[in-house]
Amino acid sequence: MTWLDMDTDNCSVQRTLDLVGEKWTLLILRDAFHRVRRFDDFHRHMGLSEAVLADRLRKLVAAGILRTEPYREPGARTRHEYRLTAKGRDLWPVMIALMQWGDTHTAGPEGPVVRVRHAACGAPVRAAVTCCAEHGALGPHEVAVSPGPGARPSR
Amino acid sequence: MTWLDMDTDNCSVQRTLDLVGEKWTLLILRDAFHRVRRFDDFHRHMGLSEAVLADRLRKLVAAGILRTEPYREPGARTRHEYRLTAKGRDLWPVMIALMQWGDTHTAGPEGPVVRVRHAACGAPVRAAVTCCAEHGALGPHEVAVSPGPGARPSR
Repeated sequence: MTWLDMDTDNCSVQRTLDLVGEKWTLLILRDAFHRVRRFDDFHRHMGLSEAVLADRLRKLVAAGILRTEPYREPGARTRHEYRLTAKGRDLWPVMIALMQWGDTHTAGPEGPVVRVRHAACGAPVRAAVTCCAEHGALGPHEVAVSPGPGARPSR
Repeated sequence: MTWLDMDTDNCSVQRTLDLVGEKWTLLILRDAFHRVRRFDDFHRHMGLSEAVLADRLRKLVAAGILRTEPYREPGARTRHEYRLTAKGRDLWPVMIALMQWGDTHTAGPEGPVVRVRHAACGAPVRAAVTCCAEHGALGPHEVAVSPGPGARPSR
């Protein structure tokens, strides 16, 4: 069974994009990785409407990617902030890979907006595809793709 | 300057998503990494409309992520197939990172649809964030983020 013969309904890329494959959703997650947690901060920083922000946050919480945590400023009512769950933090390689591509292919002459370095050694980070046997970074022509246990013929 | 004080107009994640941050666009690229090249194959396999497919392919070619290459079946007119450019292939870590998250968090009980292995050794591949000094896979709490040369205060 080749890729073109396979049903894509249960493709992992497709299912991931069903949850996070929308521009504002990915930008909210970008801000969450930068430790933005509060509705008003997301709203002010990203410049999207309150309605869209509330909708996307609600969906991310429903998907278990963000969780809410109550907080209370002095004199104000209790509100909720939004924090990445472990499931949400697993999206970090996606985020760094998007940033890396943009740094390489879309940055202006001034260069990238942020630098991300390994705190312990100071070296820049990168997103790479490697094999579990540690043979170094791989390219798309160095892999073999085969049907997995979930492969189904397309209808 | 902290992240919340920075203008996001030239953020690399945002600029990348301006080009590829749309579900059909990313699914077309997924198929392209699986070596799908022809309009009719994309159309039949993905089940999107011809108009949307044509629009997204045109934008990907305009962005230099796909390129067209003429081909001719016997007895038919010359048509074009779509191939990833080097710039397009640089999106591979994004794609593998999306697949990996879906394999972990969205796959059904039957398991993933495809297996991607290092052809030379047979080990499964993974997308990881590492530092350039090769200190192994890193998590979001092991990095330091600082303003880059393109950082600008938000207006």
